[in-house]
Amino acid sequence: MSDAAEIRMDAGALNAFLHRAFPEVDPEQMPQVLEVEAGRALLKLPYASRQLRPGGVISGPTMMSLADTAAYAMILARIGEVALSVTTSLNIHFLRGCKPGDLYAEATLLKLGRRIATVDVLMWTQGRERAAAKATVAYAIP
Amino acid sequence: MSDAAEIRMDAGALNAFLHRAFPEVDPEQMPQVLEVEAGRALLKLPYASRQLRPGGVISGPTMMSLADTAAYAMILARIGEVALSVTTSLNIHFLRGCKPGDLYAEATLLKLGRRIATVDVLMWTQGRERAAAKATVAYAIP
Amino acid sequence: MSDAAEIRMDAGALNAFLHRAFPEVDPEQMPQVLEVEAGRALLKLPYASRQLRPGGVISGPTMMSLADTAAYAMILARIGEVALSVTTSLNIHFLRGCKPGDLYAEATLLKLGRRIATVDVLMWTQGRERAAAKATVAYAIP
Amino acid sequence: MSDAAEIRMDAGALNAFLHRAFPEVDPEQMPQVLEVEAGRALLKLPYASRQLRPGGVISGPTMMSLADTAAYAMILARIGEVALSVTTSLNIHFLRGCKPGDLYAEATLLKLGRRIATVDVLMWTQGRERAAAKATVAYAIP
Repeated sequence: MSDAAEIRMDAGALNAFLHRAFPEVDPEQMPQVLEVEAGRALLKLPYASRQLRPGGVISGPTMMSLADTAAYAMILARIGEVALSVTTSLNIHFLRGCKPGDLYAEATLLKLGRRIATVDVLMWTQGRERAAAKATVAYAIP
Repeated sequence: MSDAAEIRMDAGALNAFLHRAFPEVDPEQMPQVLEVEAGRALLKLPYASRQLRPGGVISGPTMMSLADTAAYAMILARIGEVALSVTTSLNIHFLRGCKPGDLYAEATLLKLGRRIATVDVLMWTQGRERAAAKATVAYAIP
Repeated sequence: MSDAAEIRMDAGALNAFLHRAFPEVDPEQMPQVLEVEAGRALLKLPYASRQLRPGGVISGPTMMSLADTAAYAMILARIGEVALSVTTSLNIHFLRGCKPGDLYAEATLLKLGRRIATVDVLMWTQGRERAAAKATVAYAIP
Repeated sequence: MSDAAEIRMDAGALNAFLHRAFPEVDPEQMPQVLEVEAGRALLKLPYASRQLRPGGVISGPTMMSLADTAAYAMILARIGEVALSVTTSLNIHFLRGCKPGDLYAEATLLKLGRRIATVDVLMWTQGRERAAAKATVAYAIP
């Protein structure tokens, strides 16, 4: 799945789309697509203290929201903006307390079927080898 | 699990705790605990247009966040505020597009173990029989 | 979802189908559909010592397999035998050690969509109020 | 997580343990641990026609059972045979029909905590790049 020709939207196109699709989100709080390949995407959510929960770690909902966006971006990169894809299920495991910092999400496309796409997402603030959470997200393709 | 004596925090105590624990959340956007029993809790998240995603339905992250809070409230109701409990995993299935409106979450305690508590959460805006999402949340108890 | 007219296969038809579809399974080890309604099905897996794992409790794979069959039976009850439905995802939480005994599974239909059906399954050997596991199963409908 | 010194049980020790722990399983049907490293294990389940479901593909329960065993082996490799570890949750996504053949499972250790270990498992019969299923398994460590 490494053929660049298979990508219909690159990082710039995805970022422009996310800003158009979610006009109410403060642009400084919008996840940024940093890299896109046919089977992988890397996103970053800039840190803000509002993301913290009691204990001083980044909240679960912050990570769940980024996992959903990362899977969405990975799928749109492959099928293009025309499709209205919706999440059907999301499973997340929180692995360790997520220290404050920019939150990275690496999405790996497990399967792009005709009707269902499945994406794994690994998330961290302190380095990929100290992942804070791992999610698997399934999207229905219209 | 219907013995009222088993509840250590009632709806009022839980709401006061949530406001103290999440001081950065706009009070009008805070989920409200409406009812608490030993094995069940009902919460409401007031509607705001900011919760919508493209297509005019309530976003997945809005529902995931409420599911997490509902499970948290259900567990604190039983073990009390003293404990710092953290989500270990969350699984959610989106069942149908969630029409705009106040979002309700019904948490059912599946098991309160010594170390892990597991809670089911059903969510809807248009009536319990037309649920928009179903989640299962596991919390680690310290 | 209580209209009996919505059921296309009753318990007898489902049991006959399962025996035809899985001819290699020992008939004494086949799950039995005990009850079917439009939104609920009850199955029983007869106990056999082979189901035990170390510690003398019923194994996880035994419960996962029954959860899958219970969801399958619930869906076939509604859409009929003509459809070849396949599991797309299964999430299970083990709540307590499952003491030896006949294993019951109660399937509840969360949503029967055009393309995806989602079913909750509660399982127990010692009474429904002491559930051993809870599963959520999604099936793709062809 | 590449330090070989961190492994307490190697492939041979794990295989011997599995045969002792599951004496009722036909030795020819027992999953085999092929490789073990500190953060990864590879297992193989020999093919048998009994594993098939209608449609001629390997059944979901066969894959769920192997995912559970692969996670178990990965954890025991690190914590040793003395511990009685039990599955707390399993989430599996079926990606494509699994053609008949020896079934491989690659377990990757996401986190080995004091109380919970989380393991990803990828499974295939026709090559790792055409995975049939992906699971995430959480075990409680006593």
